[in-house]
Amino acid sequence: MKNKGDIFVISAPSGTGKTTLVRLLLSRFPTLSFSISYTTRLPRPGEVNGQHYFFVSEKEFKKSIAKGEMLEWAKVYGHYYGTPLTFVQEKIAAGKDIVLDIDIQGAQAVKKKMPEAILIFLIPPSWNELQRRIISRSSDSPEEIKKRLEAAKKEILAAREFDYIVINDVLEDALKELVSIIQATKARANKRWPEIKRLLQA
Amino acid sequence: MKNKGDIFVISAPSGTGKTTLVRLLLSRFPTLSFSISYTTRLPRPGEVNGQHYFFVSEKEFKKSIAKGEMLEWAKVYGHYYGTPLTFVQEKIAAGKDIVLDIDIQGAQAVKKKMPEAILIFLIPPSWNELQRRIISRSSDSPEEIKKRLEAAKKEILAAREFDYIVINDVLEDALKELVSIIQATKARANKRWPEIKRLLQA
Repeated sequence: MKNKGDIFVISAPSGTGKTTLVRLLLSRFPTLSFSISYTTRLPRPGEVNGQHYFFVSEKEFKKSIAKGEMLEWAKVYGHYYGTPLTFVQEKIAAGKDIVLDIDIQGAQAVKKKMPEAILIFLIPPSWNELQRRIISRSSDSPEEIKKRLEAAKKEILAAREFDYIVINDVLEDALKELVSIIQATKARANKRWPEIKRLLQA
Repeated sequence: MKNKGDIFVISAPSGTGKTTLVRLLLSRFPTLSFSISYTTRLPRPGEVNGQHYFFVSEKEFKKSIAKGEMLEWAKVYGHYYGTPLTFVQEKIAAGKDIVLDIDIQGAQAVKKKMPEAILIFLIPPSWNELQRRIISRSSDSPEEIKKRLEAAKKEILAAREFDYIVINDVLEDALKELVSIIQATKARANKRWPEIKRLLQA
């Protein structure tokens, strides 16, 4: 009998470098499976169906929600985004670990349905640094930037309800910490106990 | 304001290679402080007072117990062993992490007094391997060895109540897992939250 896989949910306010970090994590940890979200928005140049997202129609998406096939979903700027429940369930049943790169509300929704999920909050090293990152990558107006900063501040308050907080200052250090969290999770007594029981019976 | 240090308690049935592993851990992780136990037994050749143990008289030891100065203590084969409470409290108040290498009952006693302590159970990779290790290092009679094995089996059942279980098969892997547990503990949201709050106020 295989041990069940773990679910790691990584969330962050925008401008924290989450996408880069998750990509690095997956390349260093090839045993991790990445959960590909469904979305109703159109593919951007370079985005591949089934790799970056599953691109579906609004009709299909709403049908999936109605059938309870979404572990979590949200409507953002008029488009739907969601995590397919079956994919996650199949992977962890097969003993595979899975990474979800979703927003903070999504993370909270996953925890409600699957309390065993490990929630990781990624955070910038300082308020100034977050400001700098949001401003530098944004082509938005000062008004829009101010809004984004206010939103980030609110989002950071949610970190308290997560299991772990990783500070993304030096990328390599943040990556190491993510890896530690994944490895320590494997060593949790409740995870390892079935294995030990078999050892005692042998 | 400094974050408080963490307490890591490492326990194992005899023959699991705990002493070697703890020594390696401390040499790789010089920021960890090792808690030196008090004992009433006589020093063995090569043992240094204040380094391997604090060697004290039975009268002194009993006085320490009466004054509540022992975080945990036990009497084993007629000798007392105990962990000094003040040392542990001072270290963690100063933000230092501390490692206790104590027996399983001791670990359980620490958890009762300090629920924030992280309990790590070290376990051999298989029952056969534990048998081999106990037999090879022992000059005891077959009767004595049988008793030790029975005791080990009972002790392993306690692993379930620990926070983590580390399987000591390949030493280097077990060491990595210990390091992961320590690093992941630093990233726990309740540990990091005070830091994040300061970040938001800045």
